[in-house]
Amino acid sequence: MNRRTVGILMFDDVEVLDFAGPYEVFSRTRLAPGVESRRTDDAAPFRVVTVARTLAPIRATGGLRVIPDHSFASAPIIDILIVPGGFGTRPLLDDPAVLEWIRAASDSAELTASVCTGSLLLAKLGLLANRRATTHWGALAFLATVDNSIRVESDQRVVADGVITSAGVAAGIDMAFSIVERLHGRAVADETARYIEYPRHAD
Amino acid sequence: MNRRTVGILMFDDVEVLDFAGPYEVFSRTRLAPGVESRRTDDAAPFRVVTVARTLAPIRATGGLRVIPDHSFASAPIIDILIVPGGFGTRPLLDDPAVLEWIRAASDSAELTASVCTGSLLLAKLGLLANRRATTHWGALAFLATVDNSIRVESDQRVVADGVITSAGVAAGIDMAFSIVERLHGRAVADETARYIEYPRHAD
Repeated sequence: MNRRTVGILMFDDVEVLDFAGPYEVFSRTRLAPGVESRRTDDAAPFRVVTVARTLAPIRATGGLRVIPDHSFASAPIIDILIVPGGFGTRPLLDDPAVLEWIRAASDSAELTASVCTGSLLLAKLGLLANRRATTHWGALAFLATVDNSIRVESDQRVVADGVITSAGVAAGIDMAFSIVERLHGRAVADETARYIEYPRHAD
Repeated sequence: MNRRTVGILMFDDVEVLDFAGPYEVFSRTRLAPGVESRRTDDAAPFRVVTVARTLAPIRATGGLRVIPDHSFASAPIIDILIVPGGFGTRPLLDDPAVLEWIRAASDSAELTASVCTGSLLLAKLGLLANRRATTHWGALAFLATVDNSIRVESDQRVVADGVITSAGVAAGIDMAFSIVERLHGRAVADETARYIEYPRHAD
């Protein structure tokens, strides 16, 4: 199978569920239903990799330590770029190396998506200019200040307008399922949701 | 504040959302509402640690690599023991070192809870004998074979009968919120759910 590569950006103070929710959804999606298909990658349409500036362990919110699979220098071509959020996004708004990596990865990706305050980084790059977009409810006003051309949506969990953004934290799970559904159909997305016992919501 | 320590068992092939869901809920709970209270631990009633046999990195389902905070030898006293699931639970059913650690940690803990197939390990230790309990829908029959005195519940996301068990994967988030509610009340649990934008379900 020709798998798509999902690349999740990692950084210190990334919110745990922001990256772990999409990680779970994409890594457990199978084109064949049931439990047995999850024992191997034979029917897996995605492979998921974590990417950070360096290979040094990341300290996520709460202190969870994750070893990235790739540094910016070693990252593979990414088909689906996921930018999670968390308080760690704030210093990255002034970090040219991270911003430029996101821009380059997004330029070559088939889809770019954010979770929670990950959208602030996409906004900073101008990727949300004149688009509808969302973020965590606590950052909706801030998002508008980063780029006042953004049409900020305050009542949707997932907003797809070229770039895909989602509301806070757990809404990243809905965002991931919306991508699975777009690429592989509703049956595959719903069956994977059933496998991980996640109640999908209307987008 | 006198914080409770939440200890999450980690092992190879643990399901990502099984540990990351409860990790997120407990680590982001605050006794003061809003976004600002999440910037520090001042109002945090829990601290969350990951514990594995050794300090070697764990490879979770999909390949996510996590560095445990503690080995069995260095783990602190745990107030709330969380046993996640995943295909990695199967070899642990015959692993005396892991089983004995779970037994000892559970003996001294205020609460013991499992996510998904983590309940198989509790069942193997006899901790679910004559109790109502649940697991991932794909393992309900297997759970009964591990200890046929268990009253297996097939239609609840969280089952609290002395030991707390939950259904598959994402149901661990509901389990964690049920513990937050038990210890700190519904308002704190619901406000934290709102913070992480998770739609809580009736237990």
